[in-house]
Amino acid sequence: MSTPPSKSRPHIVVVGAGFAGLNFCKDFPPGLARITLIDRQNHHLFQPLLYQVATAGLSAVDIAQPVRAILNDKPDLEVMMAEVTGFDLAARRVRCTGGELAYDYLILGLGGVASYFGHPEWAAHAPGLKSLDDALRIRRDILLAFERAETETDEQRRRELMTIVVVGGGPTGVELAGAFAELARTVLKRDFDRIDPTKARVILIEGSPRVLASFPPESSASALRQLERLGVEVRLGRHVEAVRAGEVVVGGEVIRAANIIWGAGVAANPLTLSLGAETDRAGRVKILPDLSLPGHPEVFALGDMTALTDRRGRVVPGLCPAAIQMGQHAARVVADDLRAGGQSPERRKAYAYFDKGSMATIGRSKAVAVLGRFHFSGYPAWVLWLCVHLLFLVGFRNKFSVLSQWIYSYVTYKRGARIITGVSSGNPAGSA
Amino acid sequence: MSTPPSKSRPHIVVVGAGFAGLNFCKDFPPGLARITLIDRQNHHLFQPLLYQVATAGLSAVDIAQPVRAILNDKPDLEVMMAEVTGFDLAARRVRCTGGELAYDYLILGLGGVASYFGHPEWAAHAPGLKSLDDALRIRRDILLAFERAETETDEQRRRELMTIVVVGGGPTGVELAGAFAELARTVLKRDFDRIDPTKARVILIEGSPRVLASFPPESSASALRQLERLGVEVRLGRHVEAVRAGEVVVGGEVIRAANIIWGAGVAANPLTLSLGAETDRAGRVKILPDLSLPGHPEVFALGDMTALTDRRGRVVPGLCPAAIQMGQHAARVVADDLRAGGQSPERRKAYAYFDKGSMATIGRSKAVAVLGRFHFSGYPAWVLWLCVHLLFLVGFRNKFSVLSQWIYSYVTYKRGARIITGVSSGNPAGSA
Repeated sequence: MSTPPSKSRPHIVVVGAGFAGLNFCKDFPPGLARITLIDRQNHHLFQPLLYQVATAGLSAVDIAQPVRAILNDKPDLEVMMAEVTGFDLAARRVRCTGGELAYDYLILGLGGVASYFGHPEWAAHAPGLKSLDDALRIRRDILLAFERAETETDEQRRRELMTIVVVGGGPTGVELAGAFAELARTVLKRDFDRIDPTKARVILIEGSPRVLASFPPESSASALRQLERLGVEVRLGRHVEAVRAGEVVVGGEVIRAANIIWGAGVAANPLTLSLGAETDRAGRVKILPDLSLPGHPEVFALGDMTALTDRRGRVVPGLCPAAIQMGQHAARVVADDLRAGGQSPERRKAYAYFDKGSMATIGRSKAVAVLGRFHFSGYPAWVLWLCVHLLFLVGFRNKFSVLSQWIYSYVTYKRGARIITGVSSGNPAGSA
Repeated sequence: MSTPPSKSRPHIVVVGAGFAGLNFCKDFPPGLARITLIDRQNHHLFQPLLYQVATAGLSAVDIAQPVRAILNDKPDLEVMMAEVTGFDLAARRVRCTGGELAYDYLILGLGGVASYFGHPEWAAHAPGLKSLDDALRIRRDILLAFERAETETDEQRRRELMTIVVVGGGPTGVELAGAFAELARTVLKRDFDRIDPTKARVILIEGSPRVLASFPPESSASALRQLERLGVEVRLGRHVEAVRAGEVVVGGEVIRAANIIWGAGVAANPLTLSLGAETDRAGRVKILPDLSLPGHPEVFALGDMTALTDRRGRVVPGLCPAAIQMGQHAARVVADDLRAGGQSPERRKAYAYFDKGSMATIGRSKAVAVLGRFHFSGYPAWVLWLCVHLLFLVGFRNKFSVLSQWIYSYVTYKRGARIITGVSSGNPAGSA
């Protein structure tokens, strides 16, 4: 195809190399525009497996892929590692560390952050799980707590060190709680002499009356049974009233725990505020059916940062399949615009969420899956979960490495990533 | 075998889970004593491959193995994750975070630290490579420098960001310099749009007239040729006069470089000072032929922290084969003592270093190896190097994972671990 000199071509700035931004870049046809992809990290993160890094099942590099490596076959795409600090929609400019970028189209996939329901001060005592660094910090803190318990003489303090509280009974919370319980009962069991890791407490707190509230009731019930079989204490219909250092208050009860992990609400990235667009209570941007920002046909917001009811009247969930689909849809819309020689909002297609189903894994051979009318649980759901996640993992090397580690863990009941780093005096760095 | 109640048995405290301490624990016969192994990390580190983590070839967990996992088949051994703060040899006590430990035998494998030749202030600007955290910090800083160069407009500054200085032409320095050159020329080459990573400068500085001074002259010559073929600028017979932020002064010449890595001298761990034993200029403890401390037949010092001329008159080198052998020798000596019903220094065997040969890899298909009278270089040496290192790597999973990543990198010219972590705002944690 003939490619006009890049300067003459419209400039598309994509912010965020998550599922939405990455899939926009992958699907956008070559030759129509120059694309600049900005992310503050140098890697795309496969978030659905992030909890396995936090629970020592996988290493950080297994679920991350350098953005440049994924996209280095795109001739008219540039990757920039920079922090976006704000937007000037009127002037069509993105402000970021090291300058400003002018755009003709702006594609936003800023993702979400943990929401503490108006209690930002809780964040310090109950970290969320959004980035590799979060996962590595959680892994380190959990493993360190068991090490300290081993040398702790005070019985009460030892119990606290061996207690993990997970807040939020959605997929993230359920998967974390299940994996922690399994880590203690099957993996760490043989590692210690004085403490008995199988006595570790894992407490899952959920405000609604059931776990996996977005799943059908029977899936929730099955997930609950499977969690309890793993020894997870599930507290349903209980709201967190306070979080302090090593302490969480739930329904009047005070639970002392060395580790409190926040798997609850997701809010939009604070950057979205600087868009000046209308948002819902969680700060998610309300967008039009074509995924563009009201009043700004040249700006698209995608994925977890958005609140949208699609053309079929479905609320689009904050799941990675939705983010992927929105990225692909936006790529089509912008490409059509450019082929038509300019913006034509009236002719744009409206996005419809295609539900590929949802699944959550609870532990070794335990999971629930919903595919349309079909509900699976236990072993078949677990196998399904493995295949789907392996399939969508970006990069051959990662697929291969993850598969071999899963097989290894399954056969040996060991986990390779039980390594504590980032504790040596004054070390700012991180990750393998 | 009949095992008397543990309290009645003598107590051996082993400090350090490096090659020396770990191999003492592995080889010490069961039933003779209680052993407590103390390390401030929870993992044993396979240091010979540490440079591959620093150069994004391997992930941290590939070369680390949880100490508890390695030794959990030892009935009378306890692992303690704690920081040793000092020794009271007279009272036979080890001071560490969380209390004191009494011992009947003390086995010390404290390892070494980077030596800045009396200029500790250089450490801040030229990190050494001793721990996983060091390696991860170096990997992050190198990858970040290329990312910044990509968006840097000032030509001079950009050149500095793409310059890496390695100080020290020993195995560590040579392996680092070779791997950095290769990372830039073959791996990062395709990743960037504005900069040309193949133009990156890697400068290796060595004070003596040749690299790998401990190898035979022809090996040094061949290593030099192979380094230069990779584009490494080797400065021989030049001493570092000053190190400042982003700047190193060598023989009057000022070299500006965003990354300066210290691969030079090794000094003993500062803790050795608190032993009050006689040391050499590098602070290494002078020990007796049986590896015990003069005047303290119940205290053994092993590995990099020691200075010893063995019974054959050979200076024992600071290499991991020596550390392994010393650990095994000490285990035999202490076991003989106990079987003989007490210390019998006069009857103890003297240690003799068995030279298994030495090798260094310079890059893809490039290496030098010396086995007795046989000298290899280039491809055969490199294959030999691969086999030996894979063979000695602890843990099946690690062997498997490392082998598969080596194959992957060799075939695809890619490196899986090009992931930057530990940079998200205020993240104290680290590592995968």
